[in-house]
Amino acid sequence: MADIDILISEVGPRDGLQMARSVMPTAFKKRWIAEGVAAGLTEIEVCSFVPPKLVPAMADATEVTEYAATFPGLTVAVLAPNLKGAENAVKAGANKITVPISVSESHNRANVNKSRAESLQEIQNICTLRDALPEDQRPVIEGGLSTVWGCTIEGAVSEDEVLRLSEALIEAGVDEIGLADTTGMADPAGIKRVFTKVYGAVGKEKLAGAHLHNTRGLGLANALAALEVGVTTLDASLAGLGGCPFAPGASGNIVTEDLVYMLEEMGLSTGIDVRALITMRAILEESLPDEPLYGFIAEVGPEKGGKPVERVAAA
Amino acid sequence: MADIDILISEVGPRDGLQMARSVMPTAFKKRWIAEGVAAGLTEIEVCSFVPPKLVPAMADATEVTEYAATFPGLTVAVLAPNLKGAENAVKAGANKITVPISVSESHNRANVNKSRAESLQEIQNICTLRDALPEDQRPVIEGGLSTVWGCTIEGAVSEDEVLRLSEALIEAGVDEIGLADTTGMADPAGIKRVFTKVYGAVGKEKLAGAHLHNTRGLGLANALAALEVGVTTLDASLAGLGGCPFAPGASGNIVTEDLVYMLEEMGLSTGIDVRALITMRAILEESLPDEPLYGFIAEVGPEKGGKPVERVAAA
Repeated sequence: MADIDILISEVGPRDGLQMARSVMPTAFKKRWIAEGVAAGLTEIEVCSFVPPKLVPAMADATEVTEYAATFPGLTVAVLAPNLKGAENAVKAGANKITVPISVSESHNRANVNKSRAESLQEIQNICTLRDALPEDQRPVIEGGLSTVWGCTIEGAVSEDEVLRLSEALIEAGVDEIGLADTTGMADPAGIKRVFTKVYGAVGKEKLAGAHLHNTRGLGLANALAALEVGVTTLDASLAGLGGCPFAPGASGNIVTEDLVYMLEEMGLSTGIDVRALITMRAILEESLPDEPLYGFIAEVGPEKGGKPVERVAAA
Repeated sequence: MADIDILISEVGPRDGLQMARSVMPTAFKKRWIAEGVAAGLTEIEVCSFVPPKLVPAMADATEVTEYAATFPGLTVAVLAPNLKGAENAVKAGANKITVPISVSESHNRANVNKSRAESLQEIQNICTLRDALPEDQRPVIEGGLSTVWGCTIEGAVSEDEVLRLSEALIEAGVDEIGLADTTGMADPAGIKRVFTKVYGAVGKEKLAGAHLHNTRGLGLANALAALEVGVTTLDASLAGLGGCPFAPGASGNIVTEDLVYMLEEMGLSTGIDVRALITMRAILEESLPDEPLYGFIAEVGPEKGGKPVERVAAA
């Protein structure tokens, strides 16, 4: 892995596909992983270990994780909401397991059918599972705090609760904490405020990264705000996959291509080839023809030029 | 005018319409201005004073400016590339005249058919015109530096040239300078660097604002970067009007609705009602049915809610 300034974790195969209108065939998921690695990705969240009845798109989680684990140097990240999922993830070779827990009680119940206290207990059990493994086989356990900047059920979310749960996650034994704007409600000022508070509470080495949705178009501005307070890991999704099927204009995660373009333009190294990412959109076009693809760079091209000048048009 | 933190200058009637596929009837332009004022806009760039043969969409510049001048408290901004245009703008009642000059010589020639030296002379003549007017009738003259962060013809643009032309504009007598990312090539780091340099060269009171295009999707991130170095005036366009007809995916200016939403979420007052702006998109839908409209907030709504929770979907 080359020296990079910012780690971009591609979460599309997990966060994008579980929201997609149809199921991506396993072969395309593998192609996504293989081409992603070739494009320079060093971390991909490849799937969720969840009951296939609830999320049919993730029925091939084991096969996909095993495949991803064959790429040397790739951090194979997965999501698992419970101990059973984590056990299966470990068996399949996951290097990193994110366990979601929502800051808002009602969202946590709606999302994983548990109280937050039960989720914390489950996370502690997963950390015990990790500790029972030989040291070189232990996955990184990330507590994935969801609805940090707002909840669609409860509305505003208390920043004190974010701090309380961050500390509770550390106590439960997680290696790191990720903060997710699950609902796309964050703004740059809120991003800076909350990251700074959580850094203060748990220490910088325990705070993993930002998982930002672009629902209201603030994704890249929020990513910039996160960078400015010291975040160096950002989740993103190829073509912004993961838009909500019930809100056609609402894109999903921040668009990987656009994020890579912005960072590289700013002189920050991501190790990722934006042109290769743009080419990879064909995987989505072929396998999910009904899915809207987002992003600007794929339309305009990363090259700067080609826009004709119109007389008396500019200012 | 209520106390505001950030002045948003709506430039759609000028920058958006001159790039549109068809001509907006004068009555709709007037409706845009009237509804914009009602929504809280205090500055609108209503037109360009340019030869109608070159830009047919601006043939009604005098009528539109005269109409806008009937709204008390509204800064009636216009663009004029030469003395003749400025004279007509003054007669029609414009309060503010932006005179464009590109940092790159070839873009200036392509845009206004003049060398930069000739443009500077023209700007000096316009300032002489201003000074000959009674003090209470003098418009603000803004030197609008274009292609500051890159040129589609020459490519990279020298920051030293930006400084040199900024100083030359002050010498020519302009009241203020605006910096425009005409080509959508800026990134947040470049925004901060150049604004900081120009502030240093000409002083903060002479540097008006940022005119940012969203061609590559970095518009709001660039706006945030500008805010962070002290910019308090931002141009934007309703529905991001002004996309390049030759690059279908490339939106135009930053979207006024989305910018207002971001700033207000950050706790910054704009004095503008985002819901009213969303309603105003109907003006564009009715009068320019072939024009693509951009923006996220209009799709998702400024209210935070309504997104259903999907089980095991969030993180």
